[in-house]
Amino acid sequence: MKNLLTMKDLSVLEIEQILHDAHAFAKGELWKPEGQTFTANLFFEPSTRTRMSFEAAERKLGLDVLNLDCSFSSTQKGETLYDTVRTLEEIGAAAAVIRHSKDRYFDELAGRVGIPIINAGDGCGNHPTQSLLDLLTIQQEFIVLQGLKVVIVGDIRHSRVAKSNAEILARLGAKVYFSGPREWYDSELDENGYLTMDEAVETADVLMLLRIQHERHENKSGMTAEQYHERYGLTVNREKRMKEHAIIMHPAPVNRGVEIADELVECERSRIFKQMNNGVFVRMAVLKWALKTNSKEETKNGHLIKGW
Amino acid sequence: MKNLLTMKDLSVLEIEQILHDAHAFAKGELWKPEGQTFTANLFFEPSTRTRMSFEAAERKLGLDVLNLDCSFSSTQKGETLYDTVRTLEEIGAAAAVIRHSKDRYFDELAGRVGIPIINAGDGCGNHPTQSLLDLLTIQQEFIVLQGLKVVIVGDIRHSRVAKSNAEILARLGAKVYFSGPREWYDSELDENGYLTMDEAVETADVLMLLRIQHERHENKSGMTAEQYHERYGLTVNREKRMKEHAIIMHPAPVNRGVEIADELVECERSRIFKQMNNGVFVRMAVLKWALKTNSKEETKNGHLIKGW
Amino acid sequence: MKNLLTMKDLSVLEIEQILHDAHAFAKGELWKPEGQTFTANLFFEPSTRTRMSFEAAERKLGLDVLNLDCSFSSTQKGETLYDTVRTLEEIGAAAAVIRHSKDRYFDELAGRVGIPIINAGDGCGNHPTQSLLDLLTIQQEFIVLQGLKVVIVGDIRHSRVAKSNAEILARLGAKVYFSGPREWYDSELDENGYLTMDEAVETADVLMLLRIQHERHENKSGMTAEQYHERYGLTVNREKRMKEHAIIMHPAPVNRGVEIADELVECERSRIFKQMNNGVFVRMAVLKWALKTNSKEETKNGHLIKGW
Repeated sequence: MKNLLTMKDLSVLEIEQILHDAHAFAKGELWKPEGQTFTANLFFEPSTRTRMSFEAAERKLGLDVLNLDCSFSSTQKGETLYDTVRTLEEIGAAAAVIRHSKDRYFDELAGRVGIPIINAGDGCGNHPTQSLLDLLTIQQEFIVLQGLKVVIVGDIRHSRVAKSNAEILARLGAKVYFSGPREWYDSELDENGYLTMDEAVETADVLMLLRIQHERHENKSGMTAEQYHERYGLTVNREKRMKEHAIIMHPAPVNRGVEIADELVECERSRIFKQMNNGVFVRMAVLKWALKTNSKEETKNGHLIKGW
Repeated sequence: MKNLLTMKDLSVLEIEQILHDAHAFAKGELWKPEGQTFTANLFFEPSTRTRMSFEAAERKLGLDVLNLDCSFSSTQKGETLYDTVRTLEEIGAAAAVIRHSKDRYFDELAGRVGIPIINAGDGCGNHPTQSLLDLLTIQQEFIVLQGLKVVIVGDIRHSRVAKSNAEILARLGAKVYFSGPREWYDSELDENGYLTMDEAVETADVLMLLRIQHERHENKSGMTAEQYHERYGLTVNREKRMKEHAIIMHPAPVNRGVEIADELVECERSRIFKQMNNGVFVRMAVLKWALKTNSKEETKNGHLIKGW
Repeated sequence: MKNLLTMKDLSVLEIEQILHDAHAFAKGELWKPEGQTFTANLFFEPSTRTRMSFEAAERKLGLDVLNLDCSFSSTQKGETLYDTVRTLEEIGAAAAVIRHSKDRYFDELAGRVGIPIINAGDGCGNHPTQSLLDLLTIQQEFIVLQGLKVVIVGDIRHSRVAKSNAEILARLGAKVYFSGPREWYDSELDENGYLTMDEAVETADVLMLLRIQHERHENKSGMTAEQYHERYGLTVNREKRMKEHAIIMHPAPVNRGVEIADELVECERSRIFKQMNNGVFVRMAVLKWALKTNSKEETKNGHLIKGW
């Protein structure tokens, strides 16, 4: 069985296949599993776009969705995540989509449960379907990634998106740089990759802004929103210095006027809402990949996964 | 594109068409949009009947429903309502049904998003589908509204229902009166329309009771529930003085023993549960109206809304 | 109309029919009601497995499910449970599945609403579909219940499961014993049926462990989890003294290391996850029973329930 936990779970060939399928879904192609198939969505953290995006993807594939409201479930009674997922497996889920605030929550699941786990975000760690939708968006624009200059701006250290993306973009041949407050820079990363914001806007083919996660660190930086915007944000003036063909990306939700000027959110170079649109197609492709793989294999426990 | 934000968005002709369709749906007629169609339900305030009623209506039209649990979503992360709705549009919703505690929350949306907004209640303002189901209920009873005497009783000033209904009933030829505590009377309304409760029960063809919204004003009136019932409620004795053919309505949830005596909630003249039944059919008709209109037009942004 | 409120609502013949249908569903048999049919799920207490299990059962029968999020609904506005259920009936639900923390919450509903009520757990009282899935699990193992020795271990007095199961198992010919802390023993039960845990493991054909409900009594027993496990839990050593063919059951969620040693939860004799799997099939059979019965009858109020 194959899980999608981090981007490292995917070979370059698999990534290409998933992006190929996502393109096809975007053009209206259909794929449905045989027989009634259930998926379970477990979101232990607030989320609009990722949760809704997965649910739309599931429904477009004709799947039946079991939504576990995690603020109101047996996990309140102290049940382990393993037992919750095993329960959903017994109830009939053919795959589980999980978001959890704990880094690598999936370590207690992988190889122990009989259904694929699709990681919809773990703590400050990984968010592979976000990376895939970012890749799809870049590919739509530039076709090849080889040699492309991508600058990731913001709270690198606490961002799921930054790490997933930096790793895979490099593997696919893009040149990745970073910008944002020095204290949020990750010491494990190459110091030569660090740019000031003014350098960043002139360097980038793809300017990938990260969200300031107010809910994770209470203004540790000691800056006001205005100060952040002035020093590290995409201001109206900085946007004018960007390369002609360069695009702006952001995983959203956007803090308007902080990471990006309010009036730039839907400007011509912005692909921010396009990314959300692409998210549905990428998730359809990932679900297809996980369900197709799974139906061909026996699980560790030796029983066949039935597509019911 | 057409939104249903307030009853003023509808011409008399459109109201007649919607009520006509609702009658047809009540008799078992079916209508489904072409292709898989998603709607998004965003309820930022507690609601049983409106939320469930919309969801039943959507499913009866064969729609796929995306329910945004608003106590547990990105709006907690400070996202604007506009960005949330645009996100759902990109994810594939063909219409958004929204309830929000803020008066005229929709002003930041109308004309800026590419999908129709159906208002399921805004603050103390409007609740157009409630007005439409009230009209359907009255029409089922009296066929014509011309000359009908409707008395609306209760907290006129804070009621979404009172204002929507008073306006549209007058437009359709009914004569509208008001009753209830003087301090809850809206100074913008005609003083001659004010009746005591004893006058009200003898005047009304339709006695439309409003809910005391304990959650909005903490007993500002200084009355106990018993005192309110005695002075402004429909008591068992008052009901006996109503006209033979007169009916009782209430948008619910009912405070039994306050607005209306417990034993009258399901009495012969009560249409309270009939209203809930009619709510589903009216909402089916409104969704049909919004989706049909939308599929014929281009949006402001110039891209076609696809019915996926 | 037939409700499933307690196991006493079912004759032995009806139980046999439901178990027969559940076996058939487990083998892949299908049954669907005529026309679009809605059910409403009202869970006023946290629940993962029961809620998800009912929803999976409903979807496998092709039903449309209305999920009432009870932490976020009109019940917050003080609406009675009766009015909430009547509302859902008017909105189109053909049956209501309810869990509520109040003992016998259904007394205000039964015979007064026009749709069947399926009890998914009331306070410390009843949980009939749990009993039925336990029966199915035992029947799969031993075929006949006559003469079988079943020991129920734990907080007998506060357990929905204990009472429902003890009553029905006795009716079906099994011999029921109890074990666990003396202070949790129910004084209404036969003192001769009480066993120490060491006696219990040697006596049982079926060892039915109950969950310690931390959320109901805050460690009233004065024991640590380790002490409970040592005195009243199924330890690794006690499991070795069980009869060769004996099985272990638990309604879950499990407190690992308390009622049962962590490493025994999925041991060869454990039927804990099998019970969850059986839950879906039993609930399908119960829904079929309720919906089939209902569609043949008129309600108390004299109107036909339509399967819409």
